[in-house]
Amino acid sequence: MKTIKIIKIGGNIIDNEDALATFIKDFSTIAGPKVLVHGGGKLATKLATQMNIPVKMTEGRRITDTETLDIITMVYAGKINKNIVAQLQANQCNAIGLSGADGNTIVSEKRPVKTIDYGFVGDVKKVNTVVLNILLSNNVTPVFCAITHNENGQLLNTNADTIASELAIGLSSIFNTELYYCFEKNGVLESVEDDDSVIENINTESYKALKDNHIIFEGMLPKLDNCFHAINQNVQKVCIGKSDMLFNTNNKHTTITK
Amino acid sequence: MKTIKIIKIGGNIIDNEDALATFIKDFSTIAGPKVLVHGGGKLATKLATQMNIPVKMTEGRRITDTETLDIITMVYAGKINKNIVAQLQANQCNAIGLSGADGNTIVSEKRPVKTIDYGFVGDVKKVNTVVLNILLSNNVTPVFCAITHNENGQLLNTNADTIASELAIGLSSIFNTELYYCFEKNGVLESVEDDDSVIENINTESYKALKDNHIIFEGMLPKLDNCFHAINQNVQKVCIGKSDMLFNTNNKHTTITK
Repeated sequence: MKTIKIIKIGGNIIDNEDALATFIKDFSTIAGPKVLVHGGGKLATKLATQMNIPVKMTEGRRITDTETLDIITMVYAGKINKNIVAQLQANQCNAIGLSGADGNTIVSEKRPVKTIDYGFVGDVKKVNTVVLNILLSNNVTPVFCAITHNENGQLLNTNADTIASELAIGLSSIFNTELYYCFEKNGVLESVEDDDSVIENINTESYKALKDNHIIFEGMLPKLDNCFHAINQNVQKVCIGKSDMLFNTNNKHTTITK
Repeated sequence: MKTIKIIKIGGNIIDNEDALATFIKDFSTIAGPKVLVHGGGKLATKLATQMNIPVKMTEGRRITDTETLDIITMVYAGKINKNIVAQLQANQCNAIGLSGADGNTIVSEKRPVKTIDYGFVGDVKKVNTVVLNILLSNNVTPVFCAITHNENGQLLNTNADTIASELAIGLSSIFNTELYYCFEKNGVLESVEDDDSVIENINTESYKALKDNHIIFEGMLPKLDNCFHAINQNVQKVCIGKSDMLFNTNNKHTTITK
């Protein structure tokens, strides 16, 4: 089986024009099949402010109502996705921008209402690899925004980290799959303030201890849960760190193992 | 060679939720390879107003500046394109939404500045059929918004009628190509006020006479120029009318011939 790299980038790259241009140039040089997944950064919030659409919160959680879903679709699938694709093309990477609706690649269901109704937020149910495999076999690089659909015509806002892990799991039936979460830090840190305090390896056992000792908390928990979900479902390699880890093997980062 | 239908829809369908739902349902039943091209309708202007971004005009012509290009990219490639794709998927049509940057399908160049600088407006230079053919051979239906790129990272606002004719011409090397322009009238009319006064056939000779007699004028001229451009470059069939012409052969419409 060929090896594929699924690479997720977040706001620290998306929101910085120079960082994005550098990343895209480097990403284009990666040999072999690859998939890019991008988050939304701060642009959606900026657009909502410009349009005078308030951020909707319920019990401290952000809600995706119809207007917010429209904004997300415009910013993620429109502005960010198409500009990334155009820049990849300029770097001779034959990219194609996708939401989960395109090619029916990622099917999700609206998150069930328990105490909170999150609105148009989707939990991934299924990744269809048919169209993805056709594209990848023809050296076309899929670029995913964080939007999926429910097969009944409804688009759904979906966590970009989850999209990356589910794509990696789905593609593991036809590729050796490597999943890279790029963010603003060098990896999972012992001490949040010290970017050199990278924990280079986390396994199921040490993860439990790191949680119990409150060294890993808050926003890192869902990211790491996505990592362990992937590594426990046939993904061969899962790494977290700065995007430099992809291009410089000496760059410290965190590797997740079973 | 197989026959492919390239179908362009405009604002009268895009701006009307029920009309769009009906069209999508009908479009999904069309057998064989097909491509949908959609215009933008009124949503871009609405968003610009909401964002307090004025429409830029020079010498009476609309200009696509950076802010306007962003709006167009968000509305056309984001909101409209992804919602159409999701609805097509709900009707078992395996659609994939594309700009000309995606798969490097449509390359354009920024319109040269003569008396007017139109801004980020692209004139189509080339249609690349490689990725399109891969998708179409696998029963995937491309859905194009009216945005192209220049292969140097720049997205460009491009006339949707032109995109449809250039796609039809480009695809004519691998398919028998039929091009359908759907709009709010039954076809090219003898009298603008009378929707029954359809001119059922226009050829190069009668087109000249219709122009000379000012029966065809203004907005219809670029549309018809696109039609003749297509029919003179290997497109087998070019029709203009209400979208009903696709589904009901008794429906009057205009056919363009050499």
